[in-house]
Amino acid sequence: MSKGGSKTWYVADGWMPLKNKTAETGYEGHEAIMILNCQNQDAEILMDVYFEDKDPIEGIRLAVPAKRIKCFRMDHPNEIGGIKLERLSQYALRFRSSMEVVVQYGRMDVSQDNLAYIGTMGHSE
Amino acid sequence: MSKGGSKTWYVADGWMPLKNKTAETGYEGHEAIMILNCQNQDAEILMDVYFEDKDPIEGIRLAVPAKRIKCFRMDHPNEIGGIKLERLSQYALRFRSSMEVVVQYGRMDVSQDNLAYIGTMGHSE
Amino acid sequence: MSKGGSKTWYVADGWMPLKNKTAETGYEGHEAIMILNCQNQDAEILMDVYFEDKDPIEGIRLAVPAKRIKCFRMDHPNEIGGIKLERLSQYALRFRSSMEVVVQYGRMDVSQDNLAYIGTMGHSE
Amino acid sequence: MSKGGSKTWYVADGWMPLKNKTAETGYEGHEAIMILNCQNQDAEILMDVYFEDKDPIEGIRLAVPAKRIKCFRMDHPNEIGGIKLERLSQYALRFRSSMEVVVQYGRMDVSQDNLAYIGTMGHSE
Repeated sequence: MSKGGSKTWYVADGWMPLKNKTAETGYEGHEAIMILNCQNQDAEILMDVYFEDKDPIEGIRLAVPAKRIKCFRMDHPNEIGGIKLERLSQYALRFRSSMEVVVQYGRMDVSQDNLAYIGTMGHSE
Repeated sequence: MSKGGSKTWYVADGWMPLKNKTAETGYEGHEAIMILNCQNQDAEILMDVYFEDKDPIEGIRLAVPAKRIKCFRMDHPNEIGGIKLERLSQYALRFRSSMEVVVQYGRMDVSQDNLAYIGTMGHSE
Repeated sequence: MSKGGSKTWYVADGWMPLKNKTAETGYEGHEAIMILNCQNQDAEILMDVYFEDKDPIEGIRLAVPAKRIKCFRMDHPNEIGGIKLERLSQYALRFRSSMEVVVQYGRMDVSQDNLAYIGTMGHSE
Repeated sequence: MSKGGSKTWYVADGWMPLKNKTAETGYEGHEAIMILNCQNQDAEILMDVYFEDKDPIEGIRLAVPAKRIKCFRMDHPNEIGGIKLERLSQYALRFRSSMEVVVQYGRMDVSQDNLAYIGTMGHSE
Protein backbone atom coordinates (compact mmCIF):
# COMPACT_ATOMS: atom_id res chain seq x y z
CA MET A 1 0.00 0.00 0.00
CA SER A 2 1.31 3.44 -0.89
CA LYS A 3 0.59 6.19 1.64
CA GLY A 4 -0.02 8.88 -0.94
CA GLY A 5 2.60 11.39 0.24
CA SER A 6 2.68 13.47 3.40
CA LYS A 7 0.36 15.75 5.36
CA THR A 8 2.77 18.66 5.75
CA TRP A 9 4.77 20.35 3.00
CA TYR A 10 7.01 23.41 2.75
CA VAL A 11 8.19 25.55 -0.15
CA ALA A 12 10.74 28.10 1.04
CA ASP A 13 11.58 29.94 -2.18
CA GLY A 14 8.45 31.68 -3.38
CA TRP A 15 9.27 34.62 -5.65
CA MET A 16 6.96 35.68 -8.42
CA PRO A 17 8.68 36.94 -11.58
CA LEU A 18 7.44 39.72 -13.87
CA LYS A 19 4.36 38.92 -15.89
CA ASN A 20 5.78 39.55 -19.39
CA LYS A 21 3.75 37.58 -21.83
CA THR A 22 5.64 36.23 -24.81
CA ALA A 23 3.96 36.55 -28.18
CA GLU A 24 5.59 33.42 -29.56
CA THR A 25 4.12 30.90 -27.11
CA GLY A 26 1.67 32.78 -24.92
CA TYR A 27 3.82 31.84 -21.91
CA GLU A 28 3.33 34.17 -18.96
CA GLY A 29 5.71 34.63 -16.05
CA HIS A 30 4.16 32.89 -13.06
CA GLU A 31 4.51 30.42 -10.22
CA ALA A 32 2.27 27.50 -9.47
CA ILE A 33 1.80 24.85 -6.81
CA MET A 34 0.81 21.40 -7.97
CA ILE A 35 -0.96 19.17 -5.45
CA LEU A 36 -1.53 15.50 -6.19
CA ASN A 37 -4.22 13.59 -4.32
CA CYS A 38 -4.03 9.86 -5.12
CA GLN A 39 -6.58 8.89 -2.50
CA ASN A 40 -10.27 8.04 -2.62
CA GLN A 41 -11.37 11.07 -0.63
CA ASP A 42 -11.13 14.80 -1.29
CA ALA A 43 -8.27 16.52 0.53
CA GLU A 44 -8.77 19.74 2.50
CA ILE A 45 -5.60 21.74 2.72
CA LEU A 46 -4.63 24.81 4.70
CA MET A 47 -2.03 27.00 3.03
CA ASP A 48 0.03 29.45 5.10
CA VAL A 49 1.97 32.24 3.39
CA TYR A 50 5.09 33.64 5.11
CA PHE A 51 6.76 36.96 4.33
CA GLU A 52 10.04 38.71 5.11
CA ASP A 53 8.70 41.63 7.07
CA LYS A 54 5.11 41.07 8.05
CA ASP A 55 2.99 38.44 9.76
CA PRO A 56 1.96 35.37 7.80
CA ILE A 57 -1.45 34.87 6.24
CA GLU A 58 -2.54 31.54 7.69
CA GLY A 59 -5.26 29.07 6.94
CA ILE A 60 -6.13 29.69 3.28
CA ARG A 61 -8.41 26.81 2.32
CA LEU A 62 -7.59 24.76 -0.77
CA ALA A 63 -9.35 21.63 -1.97
CA VAL A 64 -8.05 18.81 -4.14
CA PRO A 65 -10.62 16.23 -5.22
CA ALA A 66 -9.99 12.51 -4.88
CA LYS A 67 -7.69 11.07 -7.56
CA ARG A 68 -6.90 14.41 -9.14
CA ILE A 69 -3.92 16.70 -9.68
CA LYS A 70 -4.68 20.35 -9.13
CA CYS A 71 -2.61 23.35 -10.12
CA PHE A 72 -2.86 26.59 -8.12
CA ARG A 73 -1.51 29.69 -9.86
CA MET A 74 0.08 32.01 -7.31
CA ASP A 75 -0.78 35.03 -9.49
CA HIS A 76 -4.50 34.16 -9.64
CA PRO A 77 -6.00 35.46 -6.36
CA ASN A 78 -9.25 33.62 -7.00
CA GLU A 79 -7.38 30.28 -6.78
CA ILE A 80 -5.71 31.05 -3.44
CA GLY A 81 -8.40 32.48 -1.22
CA GLY A 82 -8.41 35.98 -2.66
CA ILE A 83 -4.94 37.04 -1.55
CA LYS A 84 -2.78 39.03 -3.93
CA LEU A 85 0.96 38.29 -3.84
CA GLU A 86 3.41 40.98 -4.89
CA ARG A 87 5.78 40.26 -7.73
CA LEU A 88 9.56 40.29 -7.09
CA SER A 89 9.07 39.79 -3.39
CA GLN A 90 10.19 36.82 -1.29
CA TYR A 91 7.59 34.61 0.37
CA ALA A 92 7.26 30.98 1.47
CA LEU A 93 4.51 28.42 1.87
CA ARG A 94 3.41 25.73 4.29
CA PHE A 95 0.67 23.23 3.48
CA ARG A 96 -1.21 21.22 6.09
CA SER A 97 -3.49 18.62 4.58
CA SER A 98 -6.28 16.48 6.01
CA MET A 99 -4.73 13.48 4.26
CA GLU A 100 -1.48 12.55 2.49
CA VAL A 101 -0.82 14.45 -0.72
CA VAL A 102 2.24 15.39 -2.81
CA VAL A 103 3.24 19.04 -3.32
CA GLN A 104 5.54 20.41 -6.00
CA TYR A 105 6.52 23.97 -6.90
CA GLY A 106 7.22 25.48 -10.31
CA ARG A 107 8.32 28.91 -11.52
CA MET A 108 8.27 30.02 -15.13
CA ASP A 109 10.24 33.19 -15.74
CA VAL A 110 9.99 34.90 -19.14
CA SER A 111 11.22 38.34 -18.03
CA GLN A 112 14.13 38.37 -20.40
CA ASP A 113 12.60 37.24 -23.60
CA ASN A 114 13.85 33.77 -22.91
CA LEU A 115 12.35 31.14 -20.69
CA ALA A 116 13.78 29.85 -17.42
CA TYR A 117 12.36 27.35 -14.96
CA ILE A 118 12.81 26.39 -11.34
CA GLY A 119 11.08 23.22 -10.24
CA THR A 120 11.35 21.55 -6.84
CA MET A 121 9.54 18.97 -4.82
CA GLY A 122 8.33 20.50 -1.60
CA HIS A 123 9.97 19.42 1.65
CA SER A 124 7.71 16.89 3.37
CA GLU A 125 7.40 15.68 6.92
CA MET B 1 23.91 -2.90 1.66
CA SER B 2 22.07 -0.25 -0.30
CA LYS B 3 18.34 -0.78 -0.71
CA GLY B 4 18.19 0.54 -4.26
CA GLY B 5 15.62 3.29 -3.74
CA SER B 6 11.93 3.00 -2.95
CA LYS B 7 8.90 1.12 -4.23
CA THR B 8 6.58 4.12 -4.55
CA TRP B 9 7.33 7.40 -6.31
CA TYR B 10 5.33 10.50 -7.21
CA VAL B 11 5.85 13.28 -9.73
CA ALA B 12 3.24 16.00 -9.27
CA ASP B 13 4.18 18.48 -11.98
CA GLY B 14 3.71 16.80 -15.32
CA TRP B 15 3.21 19.31 -18.12
CA MET B 16 4.34 18.64 -21.65
CA PRO B 17 5.67 21.67 -23.55
CA LEU B 18 5.25 22.34 -27.26
CA LYS B 19 7.20 20.10 -29.57
CA ASN B 20 9.20 22.76 -31.43
CA LYS B 21 12.29 21.12 -32.79
CA THR B 22 15.36 23.29 -32.94
CA ALA B 23 17.47 23.09 -36.05
CA GLU B 24 20.70 23.87 -34.25
CA THR B 25 20.76 20.88 -31.90
CA GLY B 26 17.85 18.66 -32.88
CA TYR B 27 16.43 19.19 -29.35
CA GLU B 28 12.70 18.57 -29.17
CA GLY B 29 10.39 19.80 -26.43
CA HIS B 30 9.52 16.82 -24.24
CA GLU B 31 9.33 15.26 -20.82
CA ALA B 32 10.85 12.02 -19.68
CA ILE B 33 10.89 9.76 -16.66
CA MET B 34 14.16 8.08 -15.79
CA ILE B 35 13.96 4.89 -13.74
CA LEU B 36 17.09 3.34 -12.28
CA ASN B 37 17.12 -0.31 -11.27
CA CYS B 38 20.35 -1.19 -9.43
CA GLN B 39 19.18 -4.64 -8.45
CA ASN B 40 19.82 -8.12 -9.81
CA GLN B 41 16.23 -8.68 -10.94
CA ASP B 42 14.02 -6.94 -13.48
CA ALA B 43 11.56 -4.46 -11.97
CA GLU B 44 7.89 -4.44 -12.92
CA ILE B 45 6.36 -1.05 -12.42
CA LEU B 46 2.78 0.20 -12.55
CA MET B 47 2.43 3.81 -13.64
CA ASP B 48 -0.74 5.77 -12.80
CA VAL B 49 -1.52 9.03 -14.58
CA TYR B 50 -3.66 11.65 -12.83
CA PHE B 51 -5.47 14.55 -14.48
CA GLU B 52 -7.21 17.76 -13.42
CA ASP B 53 -10.68 16.96 -14.62
CA LYS B 54 -11.04 13.30 -15.43
CA ASP B 55 -10.38 9.94 -13.82
CA PRO B 56 -6.82 8.62 -13.71
CA ILE B 57 -5.44 6.01 -16.06
CA GLU B 58 -4.08 3.38 -13.71
CA GLY B 59 -1.84 0.39 -14.03
CA ILE B 60 0.25 1.11 -17.12
CA ARG B 61 2.95 -1.57 -17.13
CA LEU B 62 6.58 -0.52 -17.42
CA ALA B 63 9.63 -2.74 -17.15
CA VAL B 64 13.18 -1.87 -16.18
CA PRO B 65 15.74 -4.65 -16.57
CA ALA B 66 18.18 -5.54 -13.80
CA LYS B 67 21.11 -3.12 -13.49
CA ARG B 68 19.84 -0.72 -16.12
CA ILE B 69 18.63 2.87 -16.36
CA LYS B 70 15.61 3.31 -18.59
CA CYS B 71 14.20 6.52 -20.00
CA PHE B 72 10.47 6.77 -20.82
CA ARG B 73 9.50 9.63 -23.10
CA MET B 74 6.09 10.97 -22.12
CA ASP B 75 5.43 12.03 -25.74
CA HIS B 76 6.08 8.55 -27.13
CA PRO B 77 2.85 6.57 -26.61
CA ASN B 78 4.58 3.30 -27.49
CA GLU B 79 6.83 3.67 -24.44
CA ILE B 80 3.98 4.25 -21.98
CA GLY B 81 1.36 1.65 -22.76
CA GLY B 82 -0.14 3.38 -25.76
CA ILE B 83 -1.62 6.41 -24.01
CA LYS B 84 -1.34 9.81 -25.63
CA LEU B 85 -0.82 12.76 -23.28
CA GLU B 86 -1.98 16.21 -24.36
CA ARG B 87 0.56 18.98 -24.55
CA LEU B 88 0.16 22.08 -22.30
CA SER B 89 -2.06 20.21 -19.91
CA GLN B 90 -1.40 19.42 -16.25
CA TYR B 91 -1.00 15.81 -15.15
CA ALA B 92 0.82 13.84 -12.44
CA LEU B 93 2.33 10.41 -12.01
CA ARG B 94 2.55 7.67 -9.42
CA PHE B 95 4.86 4.67 -9.77
CA ARG B 96 4.44 1.42 -7.85
CA SER B 97 7.32 -0.96 -8.33
CA SER B 98 7.82 -4.64 -7.53
CA MET B 99 11.21 -3.73 -6.06
CA GLU B 100 13.17 -0.63 -5.01
CA VAL B 101 14.05 1.73 -7.86
CA VAL B 102 14.88 5.43 -8.22
CA VAL B 103 12.63 7.75 -10.26
CA GLN B 104 13.56 11.16 -11.62
CA TYR B 105 11.66 13.57 -13.86
CA GLY B 106 12.96 15.91 -16.56
CA ARG B 107 11.37 18.49 -18.85
CA MET B 108 13.08 20.07 -21.82
CA ASP B 109 11.27 23.12 -23.14
CA VAL B 110 12.42 24.67 -26.42
CA SER B 111 9.21 26.58 -27.17
CA GLN B 112 10.89 29.94 -27.26
CA ASP B 113 13.91 29.30 -29.35
CA ASN B 114 15.92 28.92 -26.22
CA LEU B 115 16.24 25.91 -23.97
CA ALA B 116 14.91 25.58 -20.45
CA TYR B 117 14.95 22.62 -18.08
CA ILE B 118 13.13 21.44 -15.01
CA GLY B 119 14.58 18.45 -13.25
CA THR B 120 13.42 16.92 -9.99
CA MET B 121 13.83 13.73 -8.06
CA GLY B 122 10.48 12.11 -7.53
CA HIS B 123 9.00 12.05 -4.05
CA SER B 124 9.57 8.62 -2.55
CA GLU B 125 7.97 6.69 0.26
CA MET C 1 1.33 19.27 14.66
CA SER C 2 3.89 20.02 11.98
CA LYS C 3 7.52 19.98 13.10
CA GLY C 4 8.59 22.92 10.97
CA GLY C 5 11.38 21.20 9.04
CA SER C 6 14.76 19.98 10.26
CA LYS C 7 17.66 21.28 12.33
CA THR C 8 20.44 20.34 9.89
CA TRP C 9 20.58 21.16 6.20
CA TYR C 10 23.17 20.79 3.43
CA VAL C 11 23.63 22.44 0.04
CA ALA C 12 26.47 20.82 -1.88
CA ASP C 13 26.49 22.80 -5.12
CA GLY C 14 27.36 26.39 -4.28
CA TRP C 15 28.83 28.22 -7.26
CA MET C 16 28.35 31.91 -7.77
CA PRO C 17 27.91 33.01 -11.38
CA LEU C 18 29.18 36.27 -12.89
CA LYS C 19 27.42 39.40 -11.75
CA ASN C 20 26.27 40.72 -15.14
CA LYS C 21 23.31 42.94 -14.58
CA THR C 22 20.74 42.90 -17.31
CA ALA C 23 19.31 46.25 -18.35
CA GLU C 24 15.94 44.80 -19.30
CA THR C 25 14.92 43.45 -15.89
CA GLY C 26 17.57 44.58 -13.44
CA TYR C 27 18.31 40.89 -12.74
CA GLU C 28 21.77 40.31 -11.33
CA GLY C 29 23.65 37.01 -11.33
CA HIS C 30 23.58 35.69 -7.78
CA GLU C 31 22.83 32.86 -5.38
CA ALA C 32 20.62 32.98 -2.35
CA ILE C 33 19.62 30.79 0.56
CA MET C 34 16.03 30.97 1.70
CA ILE C 35 15.30 29.92 5.29
CA LEU C 36 11.74 29.49 6.48
CA ASN C 37 10.95 29.62 10.18
CA CYS C 38 7.30 28.64 10.82
CA GLN C 39 7.72 28.55 14.57
CA ASN C 40 6.84 30.96 17.37
CA GLN C 41 10.46 31.61 18.35
CA ASP C 42 13.38 33.16 16.51
CA ALA C 43 15.82 30.63 15.05
CA GLU C 44 19.58 30.95 15.55
CA ILE C 45 21.47 29.25 12.78
CA LEU C 46 25.14 28.45 12.30
CA MET C 47 26.27 28.36 8.68
CA ASP C 48 29.46 26.51 7.70
CA VAL C 49 31.08 27.14 4.32
CA TYR C 50 33.18 24.38 2.74
CA PHE C 51 35.74 24.82 -0.04
CA GLU C 52 37.69 22.64 -2.44
CA ASP C 53 41.17 23.46 -1.27
CA LYS C 54 41.11 25.23 2.05
CA ASP C 55 39.63 24.78 5.52
CA PRO C 56 35.98 25.61 6.05
CA ILE C 57 34.71 28.80 7.62
CA GLU C 58 32.52 27.54 10.43
CA GLY C 59 29.94 29.06 12.69
CA ILE C 60 28.68 32.11 10.79
CA ARG C 61 25.65 33.29 12.76
CA LEU C 62 22.36 33.84 10.94
CA ALA C 63 19.01 34.71 12.48
CA VAL C 64 15.52 34.09 11.17
CA PRO C 65 12.70 35.67 13.19
CA ALA C 66 9.65 33.70 14.24
CA LYS C 67 7.11 33.15 11.44
CA ARG C 68 9.24 34.73 8.76
CA ILE C 69 11.01 33.72 5.56
CA LYS C 70 14.46 35.23 5.18
CA CYS C 71 16.60 35.40 2.07
CA PHE C 72 20.42 35.53 2.40
CA ARG C 73 22.28 36.70 -0.69
CA MET C 74 25.57 34.85 -1.01
CA ASP C 75 27.10 37.85 -2.82
CA HIS C 76 26.23 40.29 0.00
CA PRO C 77 28.93 39.85 2.65
CA ASN C 78 26.96 41.91 5.15
CA GLU C 79 24.21 39.28 5.13
CA ILE C 80 26.55 36.34 5.81
CA GLY C 81 28.84 37.44 8.60
CA GLY C 82 31.17 39.56 6.50
CA ILE C 83 32.70 36.76 4.40
CA LYS C 84 33.30 37.36 0.71
CA LEU C 85 32.77 34.36 -1.58
CA GLU C 86 34.64 34.19 -4.86
CA ARG C 87 32.65 33.96 -8.06
CA LEU C 88 33.08 30.88 -10.32
CA SER C 89 34.43 28.82 -7.47
CA GLN C 90 32.90 25.70 -5.92
CA TYR C 91 31.74 25.79 -2.31
CA ALA C 92 29.12 24.06 -0.15
CA LEU C 93 27.05 24.90 2.90
CA ARG C 94 25.88 23.28 6.10
CA PHE C 95 23.27 24.84 8.37
CA ARG C 96 22.77 23.90 12.01
CA SER C 97 19.73 25.52 13.55
CA SER C 98 18.51 25.90 17.12
CA MET C 99 15.06 24.78 15.97
CA GLU C 100 13.45 23.19 12.92
CA VAL C 101 13.53 25.32 9.77
CA VAL C 102 13.37 24.71 6.01
CA VAL C 103 16.31 25.60 3.73
CA GLN C 104 16.22 26.05 -0.03
CA TYR C 105 18.88 27.16 -2.50
CA GLY C 106 18.55 29.22 -5.66
CA ARG C 107 20.95 30.39 -8.35
CA MET C 108 20.14 33.00 -10.97
CA ASP C 109 22.62 33.08 -13.80
CA VAL C 110 22.44 35.90 -16.36
CA SER C 111 25.99 35.58 -17.68
CA GLN C 112 24.89 34.93 -21.21
CA ASP C 113 22.31 37.57 -21.75
CA ASN C 114 19.67 35.04 -21.03
CA LEU C 115 18.44 33.82 -17.69
CA ALA C 116 18.95 30.38 -16.19
CA TYR C 117 17.98 29.01 -12.80
CA ILE C 118 18.91 26.17 -10.51
CA GLY C 119 16.69 25.61 -7.53
CA THR C 120 16.89 22.79 -5.01
CA MET C 121 15.62 21.99 -1.57
CA GLY C 122 18.49 21.42 0.76
CA HIS C 123 19.21 17.92 2.05
CA SER C 124 17.80 17.60 5.55
CA GLU C 125 18.47 15.28 8.43
CA MET D 1 25.27 16.29 16.27
CA SER D 2 24.69 16.30 12.55
CA LYS D 3 25.27 13.00 10.75
CA GLY D 4 26.79 14.54 7.66
CA GLY D 5 24.40 13.10 5.07
CA SER D 6 24.00 9.52 3.90
CA LYS D 7 26.20 6.66 2.75
CA THR D 8 24.23 5.82 -0.41
CA TRP D 9 23.12 8.23 -3.12
CA TYR D 10 21.49 7.90 -6.54
CA VAL D 11 21.26 10.19 -9.55
CA ALA D 12 18.96 8.73 -12.18
CA ASP D 13 19.09 11.35 -14.91
CA GLY D 14 22.62 11.50 -16.22
CA TRP D 15 22.77 12.91 -19.74
CA MET D 16 25.73 14.86 -21.01
CA PRO D 17 24.90 17.74 -23.35
CA LEU D 18 27.01 18.89 -26.30
CA LYS D 19 30.27 20.57 -25.45
CA ASN D 20 29.71 23.90 -27.22
CA LYS D 21 31.88 26.46 -25.56
CA THR D 22 30.46 29.96 -25.45
CA ALA D 23 32.84 32.80 -26.24
CA GLU D 24 31.07 35.26 -23.98
CA THR D 25 31.58 33.44 -20.68
CA GLY D 26 33.78 30.45 -21.39
CA TYR D 27 30.93 28.21 -20.20
CA GLU D 28 31.16 24.69 -21.54
CA GLY D 29 28.34 22.18 -21.72
CA HIS D 30 28.95 19.60 -18.99
CA GLU D 31 27.65 17.71 -15.99
CA ALA D 32 29.20 17.51 -12.57
CA ILE D 33 28.72 15.70 -9.29
CA MET D 34 29.38 17.65 -6.13
CA ILE D 35 30.22 15.64 -3.01
CA LEU D 36 30.37 17.34 0.37
CA ASN D 37 32.29 15.71 3.21
CA CYS D 38 31.69 17.58 6.49
CA GLN D 39 33.46 15.00 8.60
CA ASN D 40 36.91 14.80 10.15
CA GLN D 41 38.04 11.86 8.02
CA ASP D 42 38.51 11.41 4.29
CA ALA D 43 35.64 9.65 2.52
CA GLU D 44 36.23 6.78 0.12
CA ILE D 45 33.42 6.48 -2.37
CA LEU D 46 32.55 3.86 -4.96
CA MET D 47 30.72 5.20 -7.98
CA ASP D 48 28.68 2.85 -10.19
CA VAL D 49 27.58 3.94 -13.66
CA TYR D 50 24.44 2.39 -15.18
CA PHE D 51 23.49 2.41 -18.86
CA GLU D 52 20.44 1.67 -20.99
CA ASP D 53 21.77 -1.24 -22.94
CA LYS D 54 24.95 -2.55 -21.43
CA ASP D 55 26.26 -3.72 -18.07
CA PRO D 56 27.18 -1.14 -15.47
CA ILE D 57 30.71 -0.05 -14.69
CA GLU D 58 30.98 -0.60 -10.97
CA GLY D 59 33.36 0.41 -8.26
CA ILE D 60 35.06 3.54 -9.62
CA ARG D 61 37.02 4.94 -6.68
CA LEU D 62 36.54 8.58 -5.71
CA ALA D 63 37.99 10.35 -2.70
CA VAL D 64 36.76 13.42 -0.88
CA PRO D 65 39.07 14.79 1.82
CA ALA D 66 37.81 15.64 5.29
CA LYS D 67 35.92 18.95 5.48
CA ARG D 68 36.00 19.60 1.76
CA ILE D 69 33.59 19.90 -1.16
CA LYS D 70 34.76 18.19 -4.30
CA CYS D 71 33.43 18.57 -7.81
CA PHE D 72 33.76 15.70 -10.31
CA ARG D 73 33.29 16.65 -13.96
CA MET D 74 31.58 13.82 -15.82
CA ASP D 75 33.33 14.88 -19.06
CA HIS D 76 36.81 14.67 -17.52
CA PRO D 77 37.81 10.98 -17.59
CA ASN D 78 40.79 11.63 -15.33
CA GLU D 79 38.44 12.68 -12.53
CA ILE D 80 36.26 9.56 -12.73
CA GLY D 81 38.61 6.63 -12.94
CA GLY D 82 39.45 6.97 -16.62
CA ILE D 83 36.04 6.15 -18.05
CA LYS D 84 34.74 8.16 -20.99
CA LEU D 85 31.00 8.84 -21.04
CA GLU D 86 29.26 9.43 -24.35
CA ARG D 87 27.45 12.68 -24.89
CA LEU D 88 23.66 12.65 -25.55
CA SER D 89 23.29 9.24 -23.99
CA GLN D 90 21.32 8.29 -20.88
CA TYR D 91 23.14 6.99 -17.83
CA ALA D 92 22.68 6.94 -14.06
CA LEU D 93 24.86 6.89 -10.98
CA ARG D 94 25.03 5.23 -7.59
CA PHE D 95 27.45 6.29 -4.87
CA ARG D 96 28.43 4.12 -1.92
CA SER D 97 30.53 5.95 0.62
CA SER D 98 32.60 4.80 3.58
CA MET D 99 30.99 7.57 5.64
CA GLU D 100 28.09 10.00 5.40
CA VAL D 101 28.38 12.58 2.62
CA VAL D 102 26.01 14.75 0.58
CA VAL D 103 25.71 14.32 -3.21
CA GLN D 104 24.25 16.80 -5.67
CA TYR D 105 24.04 16.77 -9.46
CA GLY D 106 24.28 19.65 -11.92
CA ARG D 107 24.01 19.96 -15.69
CA MET D 108 24.98 23.04 -17.66
CA ASP D 109 23.68 22.99 -21.21
CA VAL D 110 24.88 25.66 -23.65
CA SER D 111 23.99 23.82 -26.85
CA GLN D 112 21.67 26.51 -28.09
CA ASP D 113 23.65 29.63 -27.52
CA ASN D 114 21.79 30.16 -24.34
CA LEU D 115 22.35 28.60 -20.95
CA ALA D 116 20.10 26.10 -19.22
CA TYR D 117 20.57 24.29 -15.93
CA ILE D 118 19.24 21.24 -14.18
CA GLY D 119 20.18 20.83 -10.57
CA THR D 120 18.96 18.16 -8.16
CA MET D 121 19.91 16.74 -4.82
CA GLY D 122 20.65 13.08 -5.15
CA HIS D 123 18.23 10.56 -3.65
CA SER D 124 19.66 9.34 -0.36
CA GLU D 125 19.07 6.30 1.78
